[in-house]
Order: sequence, then C-alpha cells, then structure tokens
Amino acid sequence: MTEIPKDHPRYESLIAREKVTAGVKMGITSIQGLISQGRGESFDYLIGERSTKSALYAERAAVAALLLAKNPVISVNGNVAALAPEKVVALADVTGAKLEVNLFHRTETRVHLIIEQLRANGASEVLGKNPDASLELSHARRLVESRGIYSADVVLVPLEDGDRCEKLVEMGKTVITIDLNPLSRTSRMATISIVDNLTRALENMIKLGVELKKERKEELVKLITTYDNKRALSEAISEIQEYLKTMTVELEY
Amino acid sequence: MTEIPKDHPRYESLIAREKVTAGVKMGITSIQGLISQGRGESFDYLIGERSTKSALYAERAAVAALLLAKNPVISVNGNVAALAPEKVVALADVTGAKLEVNLFHRTETRVHLIIEQLRANGASEVLGKNPDASLELSHARRLVESRGIYSADVVLVPLEDGDRCEKLVEMGKTVITIDLNPLSRTSRMATISIVDNLTRALENMIKLGVELKKERKEELVKLITTYDNKRALSEAISEIQEYLKTMTVELEY
Repeated sequence: MTEIPKDHPRYESLIAREKVTAGVKMGITSIQGLISQGRGESFDYLIGERSTKSALYAERAAVAALLLAKNPVISVNGNVAALAPEKVVALADVTGAKLEVNLFHRTETRVHLIIEQLRANGASEVLGKNPDASLELSHARRLVESRGIYSADVVLVPLEDGDRCEKLVEMGKTVITIDLNPLSRTSRMATISIVDNLTRALENMIKLGVELKKERKEELVKLITTYDNKRALSEAISEIQEYLKTMTVELEY
Repeated sequence: MTEIPKDHPRYESLIAREKVTAGVKMGITSIQGLISQGRGESFDYLIGERSTKSALYAERAAVAALLLAKNPVISVNGNVAALAPEKVVALADVTGAKLEVNLFHRTETRVHLIIEQLRANGASEVLGKNPDASLELSHARRLVESRGIYSADVVLVPLEDGDRCEKLVEMGKTVITIDLNPLSRTSRMATISIVDNLTRALENMIKLGVELKKERKEELVKLITTYDNKRALSEAISEIQEYLKTMTVELEY
C-alpha cells in the first residue's frame, strides 16, 4: 500500500481506497468494485464523512433486528471483504449472525479467497461455497445456501444491488442495507436503510451490539416498531442539503 | 464489452463504465481511474445526468477562451483517452488546440498507448512523450512539453487533480476543467470550471466551437469578460439541491 500520512484530512477515505485496490490485486474484489467504491466516496463526502444522526438511528434499529432474529445472516461481497473483514466477523460474533459470501460477479476462486480472508480474520464458519438454494434472479448472484440467506429472517446486505435487495424483501425478510446513496434502489427497497460508510457503520453496530445485548427484549422490540425508514432516508437527504448549504457559505460561492 | 440494451434508463452511464473498465484492460487507464469514474457517476446522478444551464454557460466561455488563445492545449489522461478519444481529437481540430498526454500515474507504456489511441482516432500530432519541461510538482505528473502545456496560455485539463490545476493557474494560465464535483479543489481552483460529464461536455464544446468560430473576435472576448466562475459553481450546487428536492417529493420520503 502507498504510505498515507495519518494527519491527511481525508486519511480514512484514502485508506479505504487503498484497501479496495489491494482487494482487486488479491483477487477478492471485482474490478467493478472500484467504481462502486468511487460512487460511495462522493456520497460520503456529501454527508461530511461522518456518521449522521439518521445513520445512527438506523444502525440502532438494525442491531436490534439482528439480535431478535432467529436466523440472522450477514452477506459478504468482495468490497466488504476488502474493506472490513475483521469488522463483519466481529459483528457476526456480537449478534450471533452467520456469515455468507454472496457475489454479484461470482467466481469460485473469489468465493474461496473471501472465505479464507474471513477465516484469517477470526470467522469460524462461512457459508456460500456450496449454494443449494436459489433466489428468483438471473446470474450467479441468485445462488444462496438453504440454511443461510435462503432461510434467514433478518439479512444484513452491505453494499448490495437493488434487484437482490428487492427480491429478499419480497421473500418476507427484514433486509438491512448499508448504502451511502439515500436515493438508490437499494436504499428505497430495504426495511432498514443505513446511509453510512461501511467501516463506520460496522464499528457503530459492533458497539451498539455490545450495548443492546444487555437490554430487555421488549426494549429491542420497541426500537424496531418505532423505527421509520422513510424518516431515516428523508433525514439523510436533508443532511446532504445542509452540507451543501454550509459549503456554499464557506467557499463564498 | 457486456451488451447493454439501448433503452436502459442509465445506458450512457453504463457504457461509460464499460469504456473505463476496457481502458484498464487495455493498459490505457490506471486502476485508480475506476474509482474516479465512480465518484463522477454519483455527482452526475445528482445533477440528473444532463448538461445543466450552468454547465452550458461555462462550456461557452471555455470554447471562446480556446478559440482566442495563442497556444491552446488539451491535456489528456487515461480516463479521457478511454472515455472519449474521438471527441478530444475533434475538439482539438475545431479549436486549433494541441493535444498533450499527461498522467498522474505515469508510465512510458501508458503514454505510448494513449498516443496510439488518439492517433487511431484521427489525431495528427500528440505531445507528451518527450517532456522537456517541469511544473513545480512532485512525481511524474510534473513532466510537460515546453511547446505544449508549459508554454500554453489556455489549457483544458479534463478530470484533473487539484494540485496540478492550482499550479497551472499560478503560472498565469487560463485553466479550464471538466469535473462533476462543484466543491472539489479542482473546481475551486480553475478559471473556468465545467461541472458536467466528460462526454456530454466535449460534445457540447465541439458544437459550440463550430458555432463560435463564425463570431467576431469581440463577441468571444465579451463571453469571457462577462463570465463569472463563482456564479457557475454556485448554480451547479443549486442544481443538485433542486434535484434532491424533486427526488424527495417523487419518492415520498
């Protein structure tokens, strides 16, 4: 990796860029994953590269849903494996969720490399290698495991595409997404849409997991029943608008 | 390239993505160029993937500046060569500008491949292979040709980084940029900041070149002296805000 000084104003963003580029070189991330990373960078920039109030609101509800689930599953793709392998493993540990590799541009080599990457980061079991069930989708991204995503009641699908997200919602699952674009089809389709950077979102969710595990079940149920996803998305857009307003003043445009 | 149906709502954007990916495979575009493409996609999405009024205002002034210049030069990097080689060549023809390859991640192979790509698209001469002058910058991106960018009075630097843009402005040049982020350092530094998608901007500029060539010199001078870059950037931000407002209503957030 290129050396990036820790005091660089955009340190985190540059490190993430290096990680995804390294993921491509290692064969974990598809080349299209770099374009997705770039799209995310722009939206992150527009919310000021911080976890906003609405993001934390969605993250809290998401963790409650994972903790209450009977069969929670975290779906892992090439960008997630490159950016935050240790964090998805930690979140799975805290919430008792399974990990399943699921790729848009699936190759058996990539599935294998990602499983190895997650194992190297402490995962004991990772599903996805022997898919024995199918979502109603074309291409290899339909492939899932029956005891994983297929039968899950709550699925966390970070950096997911809209089609797949929609299909999982149609199957009656609670679908949690992490996507920096509050207008994307993914964000619009999901049950709980987290508009936040992947690394920050996972860090917040791990902390929230530790905290909420101590709560009574009724408290967790309340977090979910009072959660309003349209409100979260609408606030995410307002936060971008606020940021643009502030910048306009600052730059004297 | 993957087959993309012409009636896909985001056809142009997907084609551009394929072109940059092909550029990487051909060795013309650096892997980092994919992340830049993604960043651009997000901002393009936020202005509704169309040339806005403020973009056309900046493009008109930019073409006037190129037509009035003594030594206009168009700088070409790996993303430009992958996305619109035939269009930079056409714009150079219409405005009488020279073409010079200038790369952030410079390798002699990439310089050679980009020159060949431009020649295959009709360019007669392309500078950049034998840099005999230097900008005050670190890294290979300082390298320029004395009869090209170094001595140019007007430079078009599409998809440029902020440092280099700033340096060219400091040297007293009229610097025209094409950058979809109206808040970027590049947009803030440039003399004329075009906030538009590269392909659309070049298409507009070629048409404007044909049209403005017929104008009297005084008319072109007037286009430049009345041009206000802060106004263009401020309007570009307003256009994003308008788009977000419209989308909020449409999605019933």
